[in-house]
Amino acid sequence: MSYHKPEAKAIQELKDIAHRLRIHSITSTQASKSGHPTSCASIAEIMSVLFFNTLRLNLKFPRDPSSDRFVLSKGHSAPILYAAWAEAGLFPIEDLQNLRKIDSDLEGHPTPRLNFIDVGTGSLGQGVAVAAGMAYVGKNYDKADYRTYVVVGDGESAEGSIWESLHFAGHYKLDNLCVIFDVNRLGQSEPTSLQHQMEVYRKRLDAFGFHALVVDGHDVEELCKAFHEAATTKNKPTAIIAKTYKGKYFPNIEDLENWHGKPLGDKANEVIKHLEGLIVNGAVAGPVAPKSPTKLKQAPVVDITNVKLSSPPNYKLGEQVATRLAYGTALAKIGQNNSRVIALDGDTKNSTFSDKLKHIFPERYIECFIAEQNLVGVAIGAACRDRTIAFVSTFATFFTRAFDQIRMGAISQTNVNFVGSHCGVSIGEDGPSQMGLEDIAMFRAIPGSTVFYPSDAVSCERAVELAANTKGVCFIRTSRPNTAVIYGNDDVLKIGKGRIVKQSPKDQVLLIGAGITLYECLNAAAELEKSGVHARVLDPFTIKPLDAQLIIENGRAVGGRIVVVEDHYQQGGLGEAVLSALAEQRDFVVKHLYVPTVPRSGPPTVLIDLFGISARHVVNAVAAVLKL
Amino acid sequence: MSYHKPEAKAIQELKDIAHRLRIHSITSTQASKSGHPTSCASIAEIMSVLFFNTLRLNLKFPRDPSSDRFVLSKGHSAPILYAAWAEAGLFPIEDLQNLRKIDSDLEGHPTPRLNFIDVGTGSLGQGVAVAAGMAYVGKNYDKADYRTYVVVGDGESAEGSIWESLHFAGHYKLDNLCVIFDVNRLGQSEPTSLQHQMEVYRKRLDAFGFHALVVDGHDVEELCKAFHEAATTKNKPTAIIAKTYKGKYFPNIEDLENWHGKPLGDKANEVIKHLEGLIVNGAVAGPVAPKSPTKLKQAPVVDITNVKLSSPPNYKLGEQVATRLAYGTALAKIGQNNSRVIALDGDTKNSTFSDKLKHIFPERYIECFIAEQNLVGVAIGAACRDRTIAFVSTFATFFTRAFDQIRMGAISQTNVNFVGSHCGVSIGEDGPSQMGLEDIAMFRAIPGSTVFYPSDAVSCERAVELAANTKGVCFIRTSRPNTAVIYGNDDVLKIGKGRIVKQSPKDQVLLIGAGITLYECLNAAAELEKSGVHARVLDPFTIKPLDAQLIIENGRAVGGRIVVVEDHYQQGGLGEAVLSALAEQRDFVVKHLYVPTVPRSGPPTVLIDLFGISARHVVNAVAAVLKL
Repeated sequence: MSYHKPEAKAIQELKDIAHRLRIHSITSTQASKSGHPTSCASIAEIMSVLFFNTLRLNLKFPRDPSSDRFVLSKGHSAPILYAAWAEAGLFPIEDLQNLRKIDSDLEGHPTPRLNFIDVGTGSLGQGVAVAAGMAYVGKNYDKADYRTYVVVGDGESAEGSIWESLHFAGHYKLDNLCVIFDVNRLGQSEPTSLQHQMEVYRKRLDAFGFHALVVDGHDVEELCKAFHEAATTKNKPTAIIAKTYKGKYFPNIEDLENWHGKPLGDKANEVIKHLEGLIVNGAVAGPVAPKSPTKLKQAPVVDITNVKLSSPPNYKLGEQVATRLAYGTALAKIGQNNSRVIALDGDTKNSTFSDKLKHIFPERYIECFIAEQNLVGVAIGAACRDRTIAFVSTFATFFTRAFDQIRMGAISQTNVNFVGSHCGVSIGEDGPSQMGLEDIAMFRAIPGSTVFYPSDAVSCERAVELAANTKGVCFIRTSRPNTAVIYGNDDVLKIGKGRIVKQSPKDQVLLIGAGITLYECLNAAAELEKSGVHARVLDPFTIKPLDAQLIIENGRAVGGRIVVVEDHYQQGGLGEAVLSALAEQRDFVVKHLYVPTVPRSGPPTVLIDLFGISARHVVNAVAAVLKL
Repeated sequence: MSYHKPEAKAIQELKDIAHRLRIHSITSTQASKSGHPTSCASIAEIMSVLFFNTLRLNLKFPRDPSSDRFVLSKGHSAPILYAAWAEAGLFPIEDLQNLRKIDSDLEGHPTPRLNFIDVGTGSLGQGVAVAAGMAYVGKNYDKADYRTYVVVGDGESAEGSIWESLHFAGHYKLDNLCVIFDVNRLGQSEPTSLQHQMEVYRKRLDAFGFHALVVDGHDVEELCKAFHEAATTKNKPTAIIAKTYKGKYFPNIEDLENWHGKPLGDKANEVIKHLEGLIVNGAVAGPVAPKSPTKLKQAPVVDITNVKLSSPPNYKLGEQVATRLAYGTALAKIGQNNSRVIALDGDTKNSTFSDKLKHIFPERYIECFIAEQNLVGVAIGAACRDRTIAFVSTFATFFTRAFDQIRMGAISQTNVNFVGSHCGVSIGEDGPSQMGLEDIAMFRAIPGSTVFYPSDAVSCERAVELAANTKGVCFIRTSRPNTAVIYGNDDVLKIGKGRIVKQSPKDQVLLIGAGITLYECLNAAAELEKSGVHARVLDPFTIKPLDAQLIIENGRAVGGRIVVVEDHYQQGGLGEAVLSALAEQRDFVVKHLYVPTVPRSGPPTVLIDLFGISARHVVNAVAAVLKL
């Protein structure tokens, strides 16, 4: 496919549109009295060429699975993105004046509340991972023609997450991905560290496996050619490194400091007048249509609903199985049921057991190596437009590395499922750096999340099946040690429904544990029974939503005395979830056992006891709570 | 300083030591029945040359501020690090057999429980940031001769955090930093993505501003020369990219997969015999002394204790001042009091107001650009060995980007202070991506942390002063909107001591708020008074530790009815902290108001009301709680 230079008329139109986009960026931020017009101005030609020369878009269905993807990683340039879609005719240009208003979805940074946005951006450095995930799916699963474009700011290119993703894209030869760097020289509070050292960017991107082109980011002809070159470069993603100026074409503002994140105020009219003077064909009749994706090889129709385990759990009661192993088993089963189930891991697949999917469907496992931020971002991208059911696994504690990505995932309305193994002190000798002790706190704080903490293999398999069908972020916390199977293979487990696993009419206290501590509760109950104290034991199954009703009813039945024990720090975990459930109830007392400090290396059973969450400590807590 | 090749005897000694270190790594992991001997073997020559040829160490005082620093970023190779210090004579070699035991500090991954470890490692990709922080201090503040060395695994070099730090080190020309890449080709579950593509590593490091050398990592002569070249290279940090083999010199294990993180088991004896055969001078008499730092230009004596505001807060009651601004003011004041106060920020200094220190002491401000993981890591490194009092600031929510680094900071016993601005929906139009709504949950879950949430300028200045003198991780949550000054300039604020800001003997309910919601509580109390309902209002000042006694006493005094309102999600914040404080108390009911879902763009006051945390909602909650 040789390059045909656009006609002069088309070139002029692209130039004119760029200026119109600038004007919209100014007027909308004037109306909102906040926003980033100068950060829009530097990408005006990039946006003009992308939207009106390069991208294949479906205005009737902006999330058409067969159309090109566009991610604005530098989310603070949202006004010009909105302006581009408005100029393309998706919605009235007048709506741009509602930017950042309470009743408009044209928010300060893009979110999928808008039908043309796939993911929320605004926390910097996350767009390339998402775009790489989309491109990976396009190339390897959809095998369709759509391409993925992402615009990255030079300020955010200091984020390591960007370089994780560039490496990933280079490694997997994602030639359907094009990353555009807007090198406008200025950050928020001072110039970027590299300013306009274009050759340094080029060398870095070349070394990271990209076809790297330096262009004048304000030259529409050069941009048209570069995007063509990107589209025809095989076996490598392309980086278009655009030298631009912040506030370009804004007189007395262009390339100057102290203009980040500010509307132009009383300079606006003068600048707009200047820009209007630059427009050659002032009166363009109606919106300019972008290219359509209809001639492209279409993405297949897929169904990611109603996913089932291909066969029910198959364990014997009392059998010793680690929930992390049950995760791998269940993952393989839902993978057999639905061809769009994929797994991603960060070089821990033989510990988390995500390799069980890889063994039977190697092409549906994406190795992301040791780069958790990109791992999460790729999964979010892969799950966009309902193309895949993505399960991401690593050690529970290493998800802390990607908290910001997961947080943004919630804003992005992602349905990615996270599975964290090796939780708590029960991992033993590897020591505190490897122990997940804050993971429940983290995932509970994600809006709309579902947090599973299965205690046996049966409930873990069901958690996987439920997660695959549940909207929003799901987290499944798995454990390293073997635990006894306590549920029947046909037992029905539900989100928000706990289970009483031991009870008698004489119960005086309610014990709540999950994972390994559920067994400590059961052992404690057995021990207490010897001295005539009867304890009821509750398995919450999901920590969020928590079965408040079951806890309140059973807690009340035992005189409002509850002991919660968890292999997690005090804050934000199962204990505080229980306390939240009881907040408006009088007459409850809760004794909470948790890991109180940074743990250390040692045998699991010794650590469980040393850090106060063993059956012995539960017995003591019961004695204390009976006095309250 | 020209290079003198070590004598043949010294070279042979270094070779022999490498094998002894290998043997120790095998026997200690045999004893612990877990650990990573093959990951030790690949760096045996590197460790031998570093410890017995290159590093200047003080065995009497391993944390001598004037001695060279060594960080083992690939913390799972801990056994060989312990072996090196034992061979150097710091402790008996027999102690190595206590690896990973419950009563030994020779844990699975290094922690500063050991007197020769500066920071905990084991979560990968964090060592370079810490080392860069140390090097920055050495070059710019201590102006001493000590050098900093960090060994990085090739697997972890996929972590973007590494590249953030490499860029930082290159940008600041940290020629006292040497980063050694152990390119042993194999990750945990499969080969690394780059395997032995040494030239790709070299190109990347060169492009990131390093003097980049590829060496045979098992050739002690080449290593000696490379470290000399590193020490004499000016204006650039050096990267020594060592081609190595995992399990080197372990017959039938070397360079093979499936040997990650496993002791050699029944192959151990055979391998040890083989290694013993490679040792030329078997009977070395006693430990080999490393070089000493005594001839180096010494680091100055510094005192980082008893830091004070240079002048007390200076506000009028009722004056409207944002706590983020008060942070900047206080930072400058403690900077005037102690020359070791430094500030670090990620290009948000004009929003967080950390630029107030920069304005008066430019050299004590470290711009880390938009790379929060490195930002936090550099601060942790800079604070090591009590060289500085580091304050790190960015938007509260962007600390989620560095949760793993902060978590490891607690394991590292760091005293870094974190200041997060722009918390909650009260930031307004920028929208959810910029709003800190999970930051209290995150920082509360850090072991040993102190979490300040000052509501006015006076208490914010005091929070800064207190944080500067407090061990462990401190977090100060600051707000964007102006709030009224409610404390006198001489009021004494203490960690763990809340304050009653409104009360009467007739109070029927206790309202707890912090930051902007404290004022919503005060407004609600005023409104309630009109209808004859009397509310007490409590400002907790610190969320962790929380003043449980004050809450219990005052809660009880009003009939056990409490309303907590916070600009944060439900989980892990002020509300759950209050619930934890009341867990063992009967007869309390708590109504908790929080941001229930992903917020949106809009004016602050509108959002506060829309998301249920305004005075109006507090009034309604009081009506509800009075019925409970």
